[in-house]
Amino acid sequence: MSADDIEKTSSETVKGLKGINAADSSICLVNGTEGKLLYRGYNIDDLAENATFEEISFLLLKGELPTADELTKYQESLKQHRTIPTELIEALKKLPPTAPPMALLRSMTSLAGVYDEDAESEDVEKRLEISIKLISQIPTIVAAIHRVRKGLEPVAPDPSLCHAGNFMYMLNGEKPSQDATRAMDLILTLHAEHGLNASTFTSRVIIATLPDIYSAITGAIGALKGKLHGGANTEVLKTLFEIGSMENIAPYVKKVRAEKGKFMGFGHAVYQVEDPRAKHLKELSRRLGKETGEPKWYEMSIEMEKLVYAEISRNCNVDFYSASLQHYMGIPGDLFTCIFAASRIAGWCAHILEQLDGNKIIRPNANYIGYEERPYVSVGQR
Amino acid sequence: MSADDIEKTSSETVKGLKGINAADSSICLVNGTEGKLLYRGYNIDDLAENATFEEISFLLLKGELPTADELTKYQESLKQHRTIPTELIEALKKLPPTAPPMALLRSMTSLAGVYDEDAESEDVEKRLEISIKLISQIPTIVAAIHRVRKGLEPVAPDPSLCHAGNFMYMLNGEKPSQDATRAMDLILTLHAEHGLNASTFTSRVIIATLPDIYSAITGAIGALKGKLHGGANTEVLKTLFEIGSMENIAPYVKKVRAEKGKFMGFGHAVYQVEDPRAKHLKELSRRLGKETGEPKWYEMSIEMEKLVYAEISRNCNVDFYSASLQHYMGIPGDLFTCIFAASRIAGWCAHILEQLDGNKIIRPNANYIGYEERPYVSVGQR
Repeated sequence: MSADDIEKTSSETVKGLKGINAADSSICLVNGTEGKLLYRGYNIDDLAENATFEEISFLLLKGELPTADELTKYQESLKQHRTIPTELIEALKKLPPTAPPMALLRSMTSLAGVYDEDAESEDVEKRLEISIKLISQIPTIVAAIHRVRKGLEPVAPDPSLCHAGNFMYMLNGEKPSQDATRAMDLILTLHAEHGLNASTFTSRVIIATLPDIYSAITGAIGALKGKLHGGANTEVLKTLFEIGSMENIAPYVKKVRAEKGKFMGFGHAVYQVEDPRAKHLKELSRRLGKETGEPKWYEMSIEMEKLVYAEISRNCNVDFYSASLQHYMGIPGDLFTCIFAASRIAGWCAHILEQLDGNKIIRPNANYIGYEERPYVSVGQR
Repeated sequence: MSADDIEKTSSETVKGLKGINAADSSICLVNGTEGKLLYRGYNIDDLAENATFEEISFLLLKGELPTADELTKYQESLKQHRTIPTELIEALKKLPPTAPPMALLRSMTSLAGVYDEDAESEDVEKRLEISIKLISQIPTIVAAIHRVRKGLEPVAPDPSLCHAGNFMYMLNGEKPSQDATRAMDLILTLHAEHGLNASTFTSRVIIATLPDIYSAITGAIGALKGKLHGGANTEVLKTLFEIGSMENIAPYVKKVRAEKGKFMGFGHAVYQVEDPRAKHLKELSRRLGKETGEPKWYEMSIEMEKLVYAEISRNCNVDFYSASLQHYMGIPGDLFTCIFAASRIAGWCAHILEQLDGNKIIRPNANYIGYEERPYVSVGQR
């Protein structure tokens, strides 16, 4: 069946566009049946074990892993872009500190576009540079949001640190441990790309009208902000806190089942088997639980995974262990979605650049179910 | 063919989602073959001749034209919301005045969400109120952008004026003529809604993850900003200015034809016959051309319409006469897309509320055309 056939014969609405191929893409393969995830052909397991976020974001943007020389140059470029305009920090300080961090990130990203004199450029190299700039600067903005709302000064980036290590440093103001750096690198790696999810699709729909990359990313942040998309690991941490201790897990699981409720962090719209990303975060959560002397949240997660599986035969997904892990990293639950954005920015930019190459505006139809033509009646007669 | 059939049998990519019904909608019918446009069943011709933007935005949001009482209350509600937080104006004054107005509008709308304590509300009535607030405030923001970048103070809204009249007043600082008010009302009316265009679709994709209305509108503004979407009338005015005088039109048309170039403001992706909105703007352009003592741009447009039709048999669309008309209204070309947003906000909000009623996340597939699984090679070996 060709696209032309669909146009002529379909009069049904495809709610949620489920099953429709909206774009050709060579960025990512999500194989839900086998539980396999490839970035540009590389298995996420190999990448999680061997590569850094710098290599992975380069891979997503450019299609190939960097050579040693390319990697050095790319790392340098990321470092050079880390500092955001002081005007942005000043603007942030004026905003209500109680605002949702994702609303602040959405606004700061839009403003970053206003301050970027290259934002409107249609040059291919400039667009790549803006992508690298955004991958570099979203962590700086997120860290600034985190600190400013606590009444603290933002921490200037440290060029001696890698991307993940510097992000941890800007968040907490202290040089992170090796395990904490590794944990951040892994979180950034595992969330960097996942096909045409709602935020990535948003970024493609926006860029396809040919505005500028900041417009597309600002929109994607808005989509990620939704609780059906980026907010699941925040809910997992809330649940763990609510449960509070090991002995409360079994009663909690029974209660949710009895009320036909939902277990946050379990099951996945695409993966019918194990989410391949989950196991990597689990191991780091174990290690940081030990390191912080607070193994409880990891141990509770293990128990919960076991009990929920026994009840509903569902595996945990990427969100489940990222909750306890990020808690160990000193990241508050309401910042998790911002951390997600600091990772997914790589996938968003890769999709934006792919969309721009052979672009076509994305404009579906609506199936009209409203009134037939009816006569206008003036206000006095209504 | 049902949606399930598409899911099972389609492996082709539907580029641009052309011909795919992405949602059921009762808001608007665009009949491209007959050149007919209905808002909630009412013909755009009847609405353009008889209704105000207040009635039309109420109609789009609520599904029915307001009774006299409802209209009074709704007008009152729009007026009450007109003033934006002073913090927004202060933030705007700090931004580079040379930034594209749509980048400023995108940022200011996002910030308006940060300042709205109701932004995260999931209450149906609150969501409707936020929609009314946005319909009321986008013009205030647009007018503030227009004035601040010229180094002028924003003009406070005047509650004695209607929505369109007050918008003109806030833009120019003078009470508008009756024709100018009518022209703005008509522009707002004719651009308010047009089905699942790219920006409206963007707003639905974003809201479907359940973030907040400001996130969806900020994204929609980004999509509208693109030159394939909201920027066409700006290009029409540029073209008129470039041509400069009546005698240059014929050579210009010949030249564009010879170079196989594009005539901005002619033809339409959906309308195969006349764009039903164009004629209403044409008449107002004539009247304001006379009123301003500068009929030239109207007369040039008439000549150009004739010559282009003779060459390529294409009618002008809604963008064509909106260019000369807005010029007569004292609106600079680079603000046209912001005016468009001040109108389309009504359609965006209507679609957002419709999407939220029986929501499902919008998440298409990508057709993977990338590498098969390949072995990871460490950086030293690349």
